[in-house]
Amino acid sequence: MRKGYFITFEGGEGTGKSTQLALVKEALEQRGIKVCVTREPGGTELAEEIRRVLLSPRNETVDPTTELLLMFAARAQHLAQVILPAVDRGEWVLCDRFTDATYAYQQGGRGVDEDKIAILERLVQMGFNPDLTLLFDAPIEISLQRMRDRGALDRFEQEGLEFMKRVRSTYLTRARVESERFRVIDATATVDDVRASVNLHLEPLVNAWVSV
Amino acid sequence: MRKGYFITFEGGEGTGKSTQLALVKEALEQRGIKVCVTREPGGTELAEEIRRVLLSPRNETVDPTTELLLMFAARAQHLAQVILPAVDRGEWVLCDRFTDATYAYQQGGRGVDEDKIAILERLVQMGFNPDLTLLFDAPIEISLQRMRDRGALDRFEQEGLEFMKRVRSTYLTRARVESERFRVIDATATVDDVRASVNLHLEPLVNAWVSV
Repeated sequence: MRKGYFITFEGGEGTGKSTQLALVKEALEQRGIKVCVTREPGGTELAEEIRRVLLSPRNETVDPTTELLLMFAARAQHLAQVILPAVDRGEWVLCDRFTDATYAYQQGGRGVDEDKIAILERLVQMGFNPDLTLLFDAPIEISLQRMRDRGALDRFEQEGLEFMKRVRSTYLTRARVESERFRVIDATATVDDVRASVNLHLEPLVNAWVSV
Repeated sequence: MRKGYFITFEGGEGTGKSTQLALVKEALEQRGIKVCVTREPGGTELAEEIRRVLLSPRNETVDPTTELLLMFAARAQHLAQVILPAVDRGEWVLCDRFTDATYAYQQGGRGVDEDKIAILERLVQMGFNPDLTLLFDAPIEISLQRMRDRGALDRFEQEGLEFMKRVRSTYLTRARVESERFRVIDATATVDDVRASVNLHLEPLVNAWVSV
């Protein structure tokens, strides 16, 4: 059985990645490709339960290593139950955030040791990586304005401008280092222009797939 | 501040380790030593929550890597919140099962890859290990008889004789390889005789501690 592709959508808040993911789904299905849309963290009942444990407020300080292990526990379950079976069935999996987001937010944002993340990445993914990662990038000021426009600023304000800058810079560094896998998309353009550039990056995969 | 010791009690079901742990606590306190008694998995509210996630029945297959990551997430929290602070306060921590039990039950019993456990052990413990590990060892047939006597056989029967044999053999192998840290105690003797041999192994630590 021919395997599907695993494509991840990455980027900070207010970069329009979720909108574009929905458009890609539509476009692929029009070409007759079976699509599985999923998101991190979560994707299975157990993974959602782990996510609730992670997010529920408590008096106890959550050790950063505990937090990281819980994130990768949810990811291991998401991979085993959702992503790998869909790829094996020949579906294209479109995933809203994956391990790059752990690097961007935990390492870049919170200062968690990069090596710890890399060790868990290898342990859980055992060499399985996205075939393509679309990174939606915009200056923080523009993301900020977009979030202000849609009234979603609370969480951003909590985390702070410096935090968001470190997240963006970590994403961009990863894209430079793994340039084979990443495509950086200028998210300051209009939705239509962004869509056009996303399609441009997907076209080689789609053509190879459809022509077989 | 002088640091306390971290002492773990290991062994299969029906080897009397919990009884002996209670006796050690009493004996140490009589010598004026502050003791912190704890057990795995658990020890904090969050760790207990993770334990519930691990144990709650569900329709979804739990990926073995997910299970292992959840166990070590609970352990990281237990270490950060309970064990390390107590040792730092100069208390002796007596812990009913720790990482050796993960090797015995997950690797020995269930066949989980030893390397995966070792990777997580290093990541979570960062070189912190028990100062002393007391392994209570008895032939399976004797453990079985004791469990039968106290009507606690159900779980044993579920797991099976072969499983228990592999657990015991993994414990004994670890004790041989890490002979500096381990003391193997013949758990077939009477409670008093076992207590005497436990005390013999603890005496050097107690004398060094009390004489300072």
